[in-house]
Amino acid sequence: MSSHPLKALIEAADRAIGAEDFDALMEFYAEDATLVVKPGLIASGKEQIRRAFVAIAEYFDHSIVVTQGDMQVIEGADTALVVMETVLQTSGKDDMPASITRRATYVFRRDTSGKWLCVIDNSYGTDLLNS
Amino acid sequence: MSSHPLKALIEAADRAIGAEDFDALMEFYAEDATLVVKPGLIASGKEQIRRAFVAIAEYFDHSIVVTQGDMQVIEGADTALVVMETVLQTSGKDDMPASITRRATYVFRRDTSGKWLCVIDNSYGTDLLNS
Repeated sequence: MSSHPLKALIEAADRAIGAEDFDALMEFYAEDATLVVKPGLIASGKEQIRRAFVAIAEYFDHSIVVTQGDMQVIEGADTALVVMETVLQTSGKDDMPASITRRATYVFRRDTSGKWLCVIDNSYGTDLLNS
Repeated sequence: MSSHPLKALIEAADRAIGAEDFDALMEFYAEDATLVVKPGLIASGKEQIRRAFVAIAEYFDHSIVVTQGDMQVIEGADTALVVMETVLQTSGKDDMPASITRRATYVFRRDTSGKWLCVIDNSYGTDLLNS
Protein backbone atom coordinates (compact mmCIF):
# COMPACT_ATOMS: atom_id res chain seq x y z
CA MET A 1 0.00 0.00 0.00
CA SER A 2 3.04 2.25 -0.39
CA SER A 3 1.37 4.20 -3.22
CA HIS A 4 -1.39 5.50 -0.96
CA PRO A 5 -1.89 9.29 -1.37
CA LEU A 6 -1.16 9.71 2.34
CA LYS A 7 2.45 8.66 1.69
CA ALA A 8 3.15 11.78 -0.38
CA LEU A 9 1.26 13.91 2.12
CA ILE A 10 3.32 12.65 5.08
CA GLU A 11 6.57 13.03 3.13
CA ALA A 12 5.64 16.65 2.35
CA ALA A 13 4.86 17.27 6.03
CA ASP A 14 8.22 15.82 7.05
CA ARG A 15 10.00 18.06 4.53
CA ALA A 16 8.16 21.04 6.03
CA ILE A 17 9.43 20.01 9.50
CA GLY A 18 13.02 19.91 8.19
CA ALA A 19 12.60 23.26 6.40
CA GLU A 20 10.88 24.74 9.49
CA ASP A 21 8.07 25.89 7.21
CA PHE A 22 5.45 25.84 9.95
CA ASP A 23 2.80 27.57 7.83
CA ALA A 24 2.99 24.73 5.30
CA LEU A 25 3.17 22.16 8.09
CA MET A 26 -0.03 23.38 9.73
CA GLU A 27 -1.92 22.79 6.45
CA PHE A 28 -1.71 19.05 7.16
CA TYR A 29 -3.58 19.25 10.47
CA ALA A 30 -7.27 19.54 11.29
CA GLU A 31 -8.12 22.62 13.39
CA ASP A 32 -8.69 20.48 16.51
CA ALA A 33 -5.95 17.88 15.89
CA THR A 34 -3.79 16.41 18.65
CA LEU A 35 -0.01 15.89 18.62
CA VAL A 36 1.77 13.62 21.10
CA VAL A 37 4.85 15.77 21.80
CA LYS A 38 6.26 13.07 24.05
CA PRO A 39 4.67 10.44 26.29
CA GLY A 40 2.48 12.31 28.77
CA LEU A 41 2.63 15.63 26.89
CA ILE A 42 -0.01 16.47 24.30
CA ALA A 43 -0.55 19.54 22.10
CA SER A 44 -4.21 20.20 21.22
CA GLY A 45 -5.24 22.36 18.29
CA LYS A 46 -3.16 24.03 15.58
CA GLU A 47 -1.87 26.83 17.79
CA GLN A 48 -0.40 24.48 20.40
CA ILE A 49 0.89 22.09 17.72
CA ARG A 50 2.70 24.91 15.94
CA ARG A 51 4.30 26.09 19.18
CA ALA A 52 5.39 22.51 19.92
CA PHE A 53 7.12 22.18 16.53
CA VAL A 54 8.87 25.53 17.01
CA ALA A 55 10.11 24.36 20.43
CA ILE A 56 11.21 20.97 19.06
CA ALA A 57 13.19 22.66 16.24
CA GLU A 58 14.92 24.92 18.78
CA TYR A 59 15.62 22.03 21.14
CA PHE A 60 17.40 20.13 18.36
CA ASP A 61 19.34 23.24 17.23
CA HIS A 62 17.48 23.38 13.89
CA SER A 63 19.01 20.09 12.76
CA ILE A 64 15.95 17.86 12.25
CA VAL A 65 15.59 15.59 9.24
CA VAL A 66 12.59 13.21 9.20
CA THR A 67 12.38 10.31 6.74
CA GLN A 68 10.05 7.35 6.35
CA GLY A 69 10.40 3.62 6.00
CA ASP A 70 7.71 1.00 5.61
CA MET A 71 4.10 2.12 5.74
CA GLN A 72 0.70 0.47 6.03
CA VAL A 73 -2.61 2.31 5.67
CA ILE A 74 -5.93 0.95 6.93
CA GLU A 75 -9.01 2.89 5.88
CA GLY A 76 -12.49 2.76 7.39
CA ALA A 77 -15.37 5.23 7.51
CA ASP A 78 -13.50 8.15 5.88
CA THR A 79 -10.77 7.66 8.45
CA ALA A 80 -7.28 6.24 7.93
CA LEU A 81 -4.87 4.69 10.40
CA VAL A 82 -1.28 4.94 9.19
CA VAL A 83 1.42 2.80 10.80
CA MET A 84 4.81 3.92 9.60
CA GLU A 85 8.48 3.59 10.30
CA THR A 86 9.83 7.07 10.93
CA VAL A 87 13.48 8.03 11.25
CA LEU A 88 14.31 11.22 13.14
CA GLN A 89 17.83 12.44 12.53
CA THR A 90 19.24 15.32 14.56
CA SER A 91 22.59 16.63 15.73
CA GLY A 92 21.96 14.55 18.89
CA LYS A 93 21.02 16.06 22.22
CA ASP A 94 21.48 15.18 25.86
CA ASP A 95 21.23 11.40 26.08
CA MET A 96 19.38 11.00 22.77
CA PRO A 97 21.11 9.30 19.84
CA ALA A 98 21.51 11.22 16.57
CA SER A 99 19.17 8.80 14.79
CA ILE A 100 15.93 7.55 16.31
CA THR A 101 13.69 5.05 14.52
CA ARG A 102 10.08 4.87 15.66
CA ARG A 103 6.97 3.03 14.57
CA ALA A 104 4.52 5.88 14.37
CA THR A 105 0.72 5.89 14.27
CA TYR A 106 -1.17 8.68 12.55
CA VAL A 107 -4.93 9.09 12.17
CA PHE A 108 -6.30 11.06 9.21
CA ARG A 109 -9.84 12.03 8.32
CA ARG A 110 -11.16 12.78 4.86
CA ASP A 111 -13.36 15.85 4.68
CA THR A 112 -16.34 16.27 2.38
CA SER A 113 -14.10 17.66 -0.38
CA GLY A 114 -11.95 14.51 -0.26
CA LYS A 115 -9.00 16.19 1.44
CA TRP A 116 -7.14 14.20 4.11
CA LEU A 117 -6.27 16.03 7.34
CA CYS A 118 -4.25 14.67 10.25
CA VAL A 119 -6.35 14.50 13.42
CA ILE A 120 -4.00 12.50 15.68
CA ASP A 121 -0.20 12.51 15.31
CA ASN A 122 1.41 9.94 17.63
CA SER A 123 4.94 9.23 16.46
CA TYR A 124 5.46 6.99 19.52
CA GLY A 125 2.96 4.39 18.28
CA THR A 126 2.30 1.60 20.77
CA ASP A 127 5.50 2.48 22.67
CA LEU A 128 3.25 4.88 24.62
CA LEU A 129 2.47 1.79 26.69
CA ASN A 130 6.09 1.71 27.90
CA SER A 131 5.74 5.06 29.66
CA MET B 1 -6.26 7.63 31.27
CA SER B 2 -7.57 4.21 32.30
CA SER B 3 -10.97 5.65 33.27
CA HIS B 4 -11.74 6.72 29.71
CA PRO B 5 -15.27 5.65 28.64
CA LEU B 6 -13.72 3.70 25.75
CA LYS B 7 -12.19 1.29 28.27
CA ALA B 8 -15.61 0.00 29.37
CA LEU B 9 -16.73 -0.10 25.74
CA ILE B 10 -13.78 -2.21 24.62
CA GLU B 11 -14.15 -4.54 27.61
CA ALA B 12 -17.81 -5.07 26.72
CA ALA B 13 -16.85 -5.80 23.10
CA ASP B 14 -14.27 -8.34 24.24
CA ARG B 15 -16.85 -10.04 26.47
CA ALA B 16 -19.18 -10.22 23.45
CA ILE B 17 -16.38 -11.93 21.46
CA GLY B 18 -15.96 -14.51 24.23
CA ALA B 19 -19.72 -15.05 24.49
CA GLU B 20 -20.00 -15.19 20.68
CA ASP B 21 -22.78 -12.60 20.93
CA PHE B 22 -22.16 -11.20 17.46
CA ASP B 23 -25.30 -9.03 17.47
CA ALA B 24 -24.00 -7.20 20.55
CA LEU B 25 -20.49 -7.11 19.10
CA MET B 26 -21.62 -5.43 15.89
CA GLU B 27 -23.12 -2.56 17.92
CA PHE B 28 -19.56 -1.34 18.59
CA TYR B 29 -18.70 -0.85 14.91
CA ALA B 30 -19.55 1.89 12.45
CA GLU B 31 -21.41 0.65 9.37
CA ASP B 32 -18.31 1.07 7.17
CA ALA B 33 -15.67 0.09 9.75
CA THR B 34 -12.59 -1.98 8.90
CA LEU B 35 -11.17 -4.94 10.82
CA VAL B 36 -7.64 -6.25 10.28
CA VAL B 37 -8.34 -9.99 10.45
CA LYS B 38 -4.64 -10.73 10.05
CA PRO B 39 -1.78 -8.95 8.28
CA GLY B 40 -2.80 -8.67 4.63
CA LEU B 41 -6.45 -9.63 5.24
CA ILE B 42 -9.04 -6.96 5.91
CA ALA B 43 -12.81 -7.14 6.55
CA SER B 44 -14.72 -4.04 5.39
CA GLY B 45 -18.18 -3.19 6.70
CA LYS B 46 -20.29 -4.84 9.38
CA GLU B 47 -21.31 -7.84 7.27
CA GLN B 48 -17.72 -8.87 6.49
CA ILE B 49 -16.61 -8.11 10.06
CA ARG B 50 -19.35 -10.31 11.51
CA ARG B 51 -18.43 -13.17 9.17
CA ALA B 52 -14.77 -12.77 10.16
CA PHE B 53 -15.59 -13.06 13.88
CA VAL B 54 -17.75 -16.15 13.25
CA ALA B 55 -14.86 -17.74 11.34
CA ILE B 56 -12.33 -16.80 14.04
CA ALA B 57 -14.55 -18.35 16.76
CA GLU B 58 -14.83 -21.55 14.75
CA TYR B 59 -11.10 -21.63 13.98
CA PHE B 60 -10.31 -21.48 17.71
CA ASP B 61 -12.96 -24.10 18.58
CA HIS B 62 -15.11 -21.56 20.46
CA SER B 63 -12.46 -21.10 23.13
CA ILE B 64 -11.58 -17.40 22.84
CA VAL B 65 -11.14 -15.17 25.89
CA VAL B 66 -9.92 -11.59 25.28
CA THR B 67 -8.67 -9.41 28.13
CA GLN B 68 -6.95 -6.03 28.29
CA GLY B 69 -3.86 -4.63 29.91
CA ASP B 70 -2.50 -1.09 29.81
CA MET B 71 -4.35 1.45 27.70
CA GLN B 72 -3.71 4.96 26.41
CA VAL B 73 -6.28 7.09 24.61
CA ILE B 74 -5.44 10.11 22.46
CA GLU B 75 -8.37 12.21 21.30
CA GLY B 76 -8.48 14.75 18.49
CA ALA B 77 -11.28 16.10 16.30
CA ASP B 78 -14.02 13.75 17.62
CA THR B 79 -11.69 10.85 16.89
CA ALA B 80 -9.81 8.67 19.36
CA LEU B 81 -6.73 6.53 18.90
CA VAL B 82 -6.55 3.76 21.48
CA VAL B 83 -3.28 1.88 22.04
CA MET B 84 -3.91 -1.10 24.25
CA GLU B 85 -2.35 -4.29 25.46
CA THR B 86 -4.65 -7.14 24.48
CA VAL B 87 -4.35 -10.74 25.59
CA LEU B 88 -5.97 -13.39 23.41
CA GLN B 89 -6.37 -16.76 25.14
CA THR B 90 -7.51 -19.81 23.22
CA SER B 91 -7.18 -23.56 23.36
CA GLY B 92 -4.15 -23.12 21.11
CA LYS B 93 -4.15 -24.01 17.43
CA ASP B 94 -1.61 -25.11 14.85
CA ASP B 95 1.64 -23.36 15.73
CA MET B 96 -0.03 -20.60 17.78
CA PRO B 97 0.52 -20.43 21.54
CA ALA B 98 -2.53 -20.58 23.85
CA SER B 99 -1.90 -17.01 25.02
CA ILE B 100 -0.98 -14.18 22.66
CA THR B 101 -0.28 -10.65 23.89
CA ARG B 102 -0.54 -7.86 21.34
CA ARG B 103 -0.30 -4.10 21.38
CA ALA B 104 -3.45 -3.18 19.54
CA THR B 105 -4.51 0.07 17.88
CA TYR B 106 -8.16 1.00 17.58
CA VAL B 107 -9.66 4.13 16.03
CA PHE B 108 -13.05 5.37 17.25
CA ARG B 109 -15.21 8.23 16.06
CA ARG B 110 -17.79 10.09 18.10
CA ASP B 111 -21.06 10.68 16.28
CA THR B 112 -23.25 13.75 16.69
CA SER B 113 -25.13 12.10 19.59
CA GLY B 114 -21.83 11.61 21.45
CA LYS B 115 -21.69 7.85 20.88
CA TRP B 116 -18.28 6.29 20.13
CA LEU B 117 -18.12 3.77 17.28
CA CYS B 118 -15.10 1.75 16.22
CA VAL B 119 -14.05 2.63 12.66
CA ILE B 120 -10.69 0.79 12.49
CA ASP B 121 -9.87 -2.32 14.53
CA ASN B 122 -6.22 -3.29 14.16
CA SER B 123 -5.22 -5.62 16.96
CA TYR B 124 -1.78 -6.03 15.35
CA GLY B 125 -0.81 -2.41 16.02
CA THR B 126 2.53 -1.42 14.53
CA ASP B 127 3.49 -5.10 14.14
CA LEU B 128 1.77 -4.84 10.74
CA LEU B 129 5.14 -3.49 9.61
CA ASN B 130 6.72 -6.90 10.28
CA SER B 131 4.62 -8.58 7.62
